[in-house]
Amino acid sequence: MTSFLDADFLLDTPTARDLYRSVAVGLPIIDYHSHLQQGEIATQKKFKNITELWLAGDHYKWRLMRSAGVSEDFITGSQPDQAKFEAFCRVLPLAAGNPILHWCHLELQQIFGIHLPINARNAPRIWADANASLSTMTSWTFLEKAKVEVACTTDDPIDDLAQHDEIAASALTTRVLPAFRPDAAMRINREGFADYVVRLGEVTGQPVATYAALVSALANRVDYFHARGARISDHAIDLPISFEPVTAADAERLMAQRLTGALLTEAEQATFQRRLLQDLGVVYAEHQWAMCLHIGAQRNNSQRGMRLLGPDTGYDAISDAGHSRGIAALLDALDAQGQLPKTMLFCLNPAMNEMLAALIGCFQDGSTAGKVQMGPAWWFNDHKDGNLRQIRALANHGVLGSFVGMVTDSRSFASYPRHDYFRRLLCRQLGRWVTDGEYPHDEEALATIVRGVCYDNAKRYFAL
Amino acid sequence: MTSFLDADFLLDTPTARDLYRSVAVGLPIIDYHSHLQQGEIATQKKFKNITELWLAGDHYKWRLMRSAGVSEDFITGSQPDQAKFEAFCRVLPLAAGNPILHWCHLELQQIFGIHLPINARNAPRIWADANASLSTMTSWTFLEKAKVEVACTTDDPIDDLAQHDEIAASALTTRVLPAFRPDAAMRINREGFADYVVRLGEVTGQPVATYAALVSALANRVDYFHARGARISDHAIDLPISFEPVTAADAERLMAQRLTGALLTEAEQATFQRRLLQDLGVVYAEHQWAMCLHIGAQRNNSQRGMRLLGPDTGYDAISDAGHSRGIAALLDALDAQGQLPKTMLFCLNPAMNEMLAALIGCFQDGSTAGKVQMGPAWWFNDHKDGNLRQIRALANHGVLGSFVGMVTDSRSFASYPRHDYFRRLLCRQLGRWVTDGEYPHDEEALATIVRGVCYDNAKRYFAL
Amino acid sequence: MTSFLDADFLLDTPTARDLYRSVAVGLPIIDYHSHLQQGEIATQKKFKNITELWLAGDHYKWRLMRSAGVSEDFITGSQPDQAKFEAFCRVLPLAAGNPILHWCHLELQQIFGIHLPINARNAPRIWADANASLSTMTSWTFLEKAKVEVACTTDDPIDDLAQHDEIAASALTTRVLPAFRPDAAMRINREGFADYVVRLGEVTGQPVATYAALVSALANRVDYFHARGARISDHAIDLPISFEPVTAADAERLMAQRLTGALLTEAEQATFQRRLLQDLGVVYAEHQWAMCLHIGAQRNNSQRGMRLLGPDTGYDAISDAGHSRGIAALLDALDAQGQLPKTMLFCLNPAMNEMLAALIGCFQDGSTAGKVQMGPAWWFNDHKDGNLRQIRALANHGVLGSFVGMVTDSRSFASYPRHDYFRRLLCRQLGRWVTDGEYPHDEEALATIVRGVCYDNAKRYFAL
Repeated sequence: MTSFLDADFLLDTPTARDLYRSVAVGLPIIDYHSHLQQGEIATQKKFKNITELWLAGDHYKWRLMRSAGVSEDFITGSQPDQAKFEAFCRVLPLAAGNPILHWCHLELQQIFGIHLPINARNAPRIWADANASLSTMTSWTFLEKAKVEVACTTDDPIDDLAQHDEIAASALTTRVLPAFRPDAAMRINREGFADYVVRLGEVTGQPVATYAALVSALANRVDYFHARGARISDHAIDLPISFEPVTAADAERLMAQRLTGALLTEAEQATFQRRLLQDLGVVYAEHQWAMCLHIGAQRNNSQRGMRLLGPDTGYDAISDAGHSRGIAALLDALDAQGQLPKTMLFCLNPAMNEMLAALIGCFQDGSTAGKVQMGPAWWFNDHKDGNLRQIRALANHGVLGSFVGMVTDSRSFASYPRHDYFRRLLCRQLGRWVTDGEYPHDEEALATIVRGVCYDNAKRYFAL
Repeated sequence: MTSFLDADFLLDTPTARDLYRSVAVGLPIIDYHSHLQQGEIATQKKFKNITELWLAGDHYKWRLMRSAGVSEDFITGSQPDQAKFEAFCRVLPLAAGNPILHWCHLELQQIFGIHLPINARNAPRIWADANASLSTMTSWTFLEKAKVEVACTTDDPIDDLAQHDEIAASALTTRVLPAFRPDAAMRINREGFADYVVRLGEVTGQPVATYAALVSALANRVDYFHARGARISDHAIDLPISFEPVTAADAERLMAQRLTGALLTEAEQATFQRRLLQDLGVVYAEHQWAMCLHIGAQRNNSQRGMRLLGPDTGYDAISDAGHSRGIAALLDALDAQGQLPKTMLFCLNPAMNEMLAALIGCFQDGSTAGKVQMGPAWWFNDHKDGNLRQIRALANHGVLGSFVGMVTDSRSFASYPRHDYFRRLLCRQLGRWVTDGEYPHDEEALATIVRGVCYDNAKRYFAL
Repeated sequence: MTSFLDADFLLDTPTARDLYRSVAVGLPIIDYHSHLQQGEIATQKKFKNITELWLAGDHYKWRLMRSAGVSEDFITGSQPDQAKFEAFCRVLPLAAGNPILHWCHLELQQIFGIHLPINARNAPRIWADANASLSTMTSWTFLEKAKVEVACTTDDPIDDLAQHDEIAASALTTRVLPAFRPDAAMRINREGFADYVVRLGEVTGQPVATYAALVSALANRVDYFHARGARISDHAIDLPISFEPVTAADAERLMAQRLTGALLTEAEQATFQRRLLQDLGVVYAEHQWAMCLHIGAQRNNSQRGMRLLGPDTGYDAISDAGHSRGIAALLDALDAQGQLPKTMLFCLNPAMNEMLAALIGCFQDGSTAGKVQMGPAWWFNDHKDGNLRQIRALANHGVLGSFVGMVTDSRSFASYPRHDYFRRLLCRQLGRWVTDGEYPHDEEALATIVRGVCYDNAKRYFAL
């Protein structure tokens, strides 16, 4: 029997342990998608205690606590920080199998050197020890301790990136780069859309009254982001996009209609989004950016949660709508005109893993290894089963060695052990194949795959 | 090598065996969803032989026999009982991996003390030995031998529950409770709908000519069921329900239209069902009932089978229609008005496990652990792979320790070993996590989860 | 640790090894679905080198190379054959977990007696040794060496089967049979549809100007194929077919409309295809053929690829559209009138495995074991995980012992080791169940299943 979360955690063969120790563990991290706030890096934010670090903004943990029957008062409410932390520690042991249980222990070990199991009994000691460590740490400590070479934030096109400039000029050894997420421009039916395009016009100095102007203003901001090191765009694809061809004139008409205050039907939104993605795809291709499509979330399911806490507070879920035709049509339209950018397809519904793993094979052109990528196991899929399913789907259908690997997708500075978790799982899977006679025991070939997936590929692919 | 179906069946680690022996095996059963007939309990039904017990009404076994090429004459036809039993025994060994093979052996062992493998050679001896045991048994024997503390039947709102009263007054140690399944009211397009609402009116003394009267009459029957111990409603959700808001006036209009004899479109049915579920949800919340939605069956696929044998005779299947939006919208509408009852989402399509496991996280409010539950691996999913997939989906996305556990969903008094099967799988999964260093070897924490999932949680959640 | 791809490859229990050695390995192959060309058999085609054998037409390998960043010039382009082969060998080690890596090594071992790992270093030696062997081989060598008893090609209804006649009259010990694939008649919206029906009229001597004439002409060709040994039809079901009843008059109207040059909507195509399948199903039933439905491909995703290389060159993918209702309605319509042929449902989307495995259970009538079959793990699913998922889905829901087993679905004479791969996986799964106490250690029962799934069932089911 292995001890709980010991040094060999998830590494169940000699090959896995060798690969992890001799290759994976020493590699720097390229975290090409996160939700860190530039301000919290620029200002070297400090955390007053582990509740602020762990529970102040982490909707993963909030959901877990709600599911265990903890009152909201101890989650996002007015209870003292220590009471919240103890409530969390009390219920975590009920969540056997949940990745949060693994992540939290990895974070205690790797960040704080604490090797206690988290439970009600140990809560006071963890509270004291972690807080003592935190008093000497800032946001930079987390980044540097985890050997984060590059961290990408997620930014709105209209965001001022002045703090990114400050960070770049600072002594921080991690390169912090913006990423371009124009969801607000895509979500044409949202209440604030008209205001948003006005502000976009103000930021760019180009009034945005038409669809053409919208694309142009966004392209202008791509230039602005590019100059600050951005190499990646992110798009939420919550509803399936249209698989029928859409002209710019169609998009003009729909935008005009919306700017009168009228709402669009879902089909019209799908049409608009398809065209906007296509036109932005051209801009991304020109800048040699990677276009990341985050597919299949069903967001804001609870009006109660929205009223109480706003968006991104634990009320999102997985959609079971189909995406194979819309995504294929978008990529094909760009590819047919020679303007398909490097593209990553993240999918929140693991039932679509094989669909996506097969689809990416249709748009490889040999120009770069894995030009069209399947994103790593993301958000709800970021756990042992989810990562292994993603790794195997990709391996079964394509070339695992071309994969650009893991992201934290996280708001938390403490979440870098998720990369370690992923690296262990990658080594585990490779080790299994070797041990089972399904892959040669070729140390160099194995090391090439591990180094590639954990570091080299992302560096090359994103040109970082 | 483990012997076939020995005492350690499915228990492949020391921790699994310890947990099973020291915690799981001794717990009573709360079978909160079954299709037992109140009449067969009230009258202490006897079985003339194992064919009557196993093959007279079990469409799972019928399907297996048909798939193996057995003629219908030996399944539901006119062949003698012993010939039918021998036909079943002859083909069962072809069904390697099928849960029926496991269940049947568990039933022989645990109910009859017979430890022979089922095959053509052993059929005569099993026939003789099992029949000898059966001659001294009644329906009560099965319930008491399996330590069934509570068994819920499935009843139509217009059903007379007089036999439930008889059972309650009898010496049976198992509490047998009705459950409320208003499918006939939901299935507005069925031929007998108009007659059904007339009968509902007669039973309640409130003529049902409008949608409002329908809801009111059903609420009246909820009271009647509640007084007899019912704490659960069951709904079949075969077609996706509408995700758009539906007013009571919409439902009134659709019901009026239907009562003129006109048929509704599928979209109209989805609209009607959405509203009826919402209005019944309020009633369930008022009674602190749990609302169980059985999602994703595609029923009555064979006109030939329907003509030959009627419904529920082995001609149902799994739908691949999407449900994420409709179910989310229903729960949200109830939650937004503070009237979401405890809810369980059972899904027949295992490709939707992750969707559901994520969705339930959006409607937890801390009022009770696991207020919104993912149902156990149900019907077509009730096998080793299906249960492990469900357990892991739930664990990956939420709090396994809040789960209310297993049901037989069965028409058969012999099916309680399915709880044993589930308990072994639960202990197996926990044992694996401990052995692999993914969960602390904390006996108390593990026992809490096992006791909770196998017994405590259901007792608390359903207030039994 | 097992050595890479040694004699025990995939056989991880004593029972698995016993079953494989004593039963599976010696059985002839019935390859009831392939894309071999009758001409390449009739003419005893020779291969000038391993590049022609492996890379000249295999879009699986092309996709792998593209995904690894190999330039098209080294894939389908003008580079010399040896350079292409070396490019392939160079990137294959990056594709850990991919079945192509396994297949290629199995092919080297079993066809050429070469036991080297494929990589850049070994490429020259493999090139030399394989080419030396190839110089003495023809297409027949592959078939006879692999003990292929029956191989079915895939032929268009208008194809002349004269070369099939030649093969039948030749000394080849493999029986090569045509299979009937009327996709061109189903794809009513394709540009060449009108021409196609004209040619069909010419071939049959019955001008095809109506839907009735189309069905009649196809039935005529079924006779022609049947006389040459065909016992199987194949249909691509890419878009979901209609689940509403469709009359012959509907189909007449749609065909008339199309023959004027008008295009049909997708709904109209779905309607036309539903009716044509139903009418052909009757013809197949009359001939006691098996109707194979290949469900869920999303083809020709890349206009660029189509322009460059045409169809079937590696630009297909998996659709996530739902099929449960359309397929059920089709089978039910045929079954209700007593004219359901033996039917096989292949599905490209593994998320639908359970849906299909449950659906086939609704149309078994005991007339033959496994009358309605779930197809083996096909195309994108033909790998270790895919085969095990398919085997387990089938076993969980039905009778594994009724399964007719594997196909290559391949264009390549070298692909018969895929049957070996499948047989190893089947023995592995059975061995696991025995070792884990989930199936009796009954050698005769196990051998019956293995012989059935690998050989006996296909021979009986297809009446070969």
